Amino acid sequence: MELRRREFAALLLGGAAAISLAGQANAESDPLPSWNAGPAKDAIVKFVHATTDAASPSFVRLADRIATFDQDGTLWVEHPIYTQLVYCFDRVQALVKVKPELANAEPFRTVLTGDREAIARLGLEQLIKVVAATLTGMDVDTFRDEVAKWIAEARDPRWKRPYTDLVYAPQIELLKYLRSVGYRTYIVTGGGQGFVRVYSERVYGIPPEQVVGTAGALSFQYGAKGPVLIKEPKLLLNDDNAGKVEGINFMIGRRPYFAFGNSTGDRQMLEYTKAGAGFRLAMLVLHDDGRREYSYGPAQGLPETKVGRFTPELYDEATKDGWIVVSMKNDWNRIFAFD
Amino acid sequence: MELRRREFAALLLGGAAAISLAGQANAESDPLPSWNAGPAKDAIVKFVHATTDAASPSFVRLADRIATFDQDGTLWVEHPIYTQLVYCFDRVQALVKVKPELANAEPFRTVLTGDREAIARLGLEQLIKVVAATLTGMDVDTFRDEVAKWIAEARDPRWKRPYTDLVYAPQIELLKYLRSVGYRTYIVTGGGQGFVRVYSERVYGIPPEQVVGTAGALSFQYGAKGPVLIKEPKLLLNDDNAGKVEGINFMIGRRPYFAFGNSTGDRQMLEYTKAGAGFRLAMLVLHDDGRREYSYGPAQGLPETKVGRFTPELYDEATKDGWIVVSMKNDWNRIFAFD
Repeated sequence: MELRRREFAALLLGGAAAISLAGQANAESDPLPSWNAGPAKDAIVKFVHATTDAASPSFVRLADRIATFDQDGTLWVEHPIYTQLVYCFDRVQALVKVKPELANAEPFRTVLTGDREAIARLGLEQLIKVVAATLTGMDVDTFRDEVAKWIAEARDPRWKRPYTDLVYAPQIELLKYLRSVGYRTYIVTGGGQGFVRVYSERVYGIPPEQVVGTAGALSFQYGAKGPVLIKEPKLLLNDDNAGKVEGINFMIGRRPYFAFGNSTGDRQMLEYTKAGAGFRLAMLVLHDDGRREYSYGPAQGLPETKVGRFTPELYDEATKDGWIVVSMKNDWNRIFAFD
Repeated sequence: MELRRREFAALLLGGAAAISLAGQANAESDPLPSWNAGPAKDAIVKFVHATTDAASPSFVRLADRIATFDQDGTLWVEHPIYTQLVYCFDRVQALVKVKPELANAEPFRTVLTGDREAIARLGLEQLIKVVAATLTGMDVDTFRDEVAKWIAEARDPRWKRPYTDLVYAPQIELLKYLRSVGYRTYIVTGGGQGFVRVYSERVYGIPPEQVVGTAGALSFQYGAKGPVLIKEPKLLLNDDNAGKVEGINFMIGRRPYFAFGNSTGDRQMLEYTKAGAGFRLAMLVLHDDGRREYSYGPAQGLPETKVGRFTPELYDEATKDGWIVVSMKNDWNRIFAFD
């Protein structure tokens, strides 16, 4: 029966207990210290004032304050390959213990060699085989436990740190800043919803019901301990490109006022956000800092990539429609919290 | 930038502004005046104390307090046919103005006669034609506006009142009671998500992001005013039976502690709820009050029905697994707010 105001606030703010309810702590100090002064930071501050000052003609009521963030390449590192794919490759070892016959079958044999160049040459059809074999066939609770164990132990080879350390410090500040003024922050990812939910609350302060992601169909079965949900090799929602807008409509039912992405997969989400009435802000991360992170485009003459393409066409659309392109090199004075 | 505690509370409580944050107003007066004293009311009060008293061994942290409610037959009247089907039948008239050739094609011709017995004899395949023709092919905003207009004007023929007046007063009290102690209340309906969202906030205090429902696929298209989402005649999620659990996993990502239904379509949701660790409560409405509402089962010797079947098998499962069956006749001292 007991209910505390603090508990309410903590829940609403996504579990990040230290955030001031009224944002008073932020009113005097800079809420975005990892952001350099410039047009990107200005655009964020302007957006917050325009949509949350009661006297502003663009004031947005609290219930409608929705901000959506892509994850891979927007909130954390996606190069050289998506973290969830690393998980799938690592899981192949556990898989062949249960099904030894797979060890000599492609593409599993190639994955087991650990030969990165050979793995990088695997085609889409072969990757789908690995993904289906490692992400489906078990119940959702078992999957969650397996991911939790892996995410605690696995280390990125370049930084020798847990993958969850490779989140961008400026973006964590931005998430907190938006929540401190009443925005509910959602992840809208092409990655697996069940995968991201394992760490989203701890790492981003974003609870499971605010993670929109690619999801497989589930079958309801009766196990030894009662009903279980088995992950099936069939898509419920492919939350990428236009699927992101479909996912937003399904899970949120409101058009975002703020959307942040980094690649062509985010295009429709940003278009949909900007097409709403009132003051809306769309932003894109440009990975132009090969020294501190990775450098890829191919927009702005940056190297071509298969993972998280930011094309010249997307850059042109951003310029034409007033989306803000964030240069990692120029707009962020640090990339990671450990920098 | 401005942010008020009251606003936060209103948002969290689903927009129902009058609810006391700490439930103090409820501590002394009865939060469930439309419920007669008895085992059903006792079970609810016991559940609330067990899961929200900080000293209880079954205490549930605020973030996990999830309660899910079926809509048709659980929160509002579903007889003689689902309200959304009445909408579809009414929309056929608007449809033939745009496509006059449909007026002479079945099943539209039968629907246009207004002959209720003939309409009741339409088979499932013919109903699907009517549903697809009236619920798809337009963009989501147009659909929302059409439903909003209809729901404001349409009247139930028995009570001569808007359908949204036909919500059960005891259930509105229960929703508010649960929210006053920190539960987030969700609708989990076999009905259309986009349909229910039009009125769920006003009628139930439940915002769009807390409406899980059957949803069609959407296609993202570029219209004259920018991107639009067109409703396609293809299912994204059939949120009934096991689909309800799939919808809960996708949109909430947490297992409910409380679930309320009234028919076989709710069975898996109640099983899944009860199978969780700790103190969980599953409840079912039994429609045994033909005088004040409708009488149907066929459990407990009540008349057979095609709409909202509560079978003897479901009744047996409820008895065996400790689900609480609520008798409308005996447990509710009034049905509607206008009684």
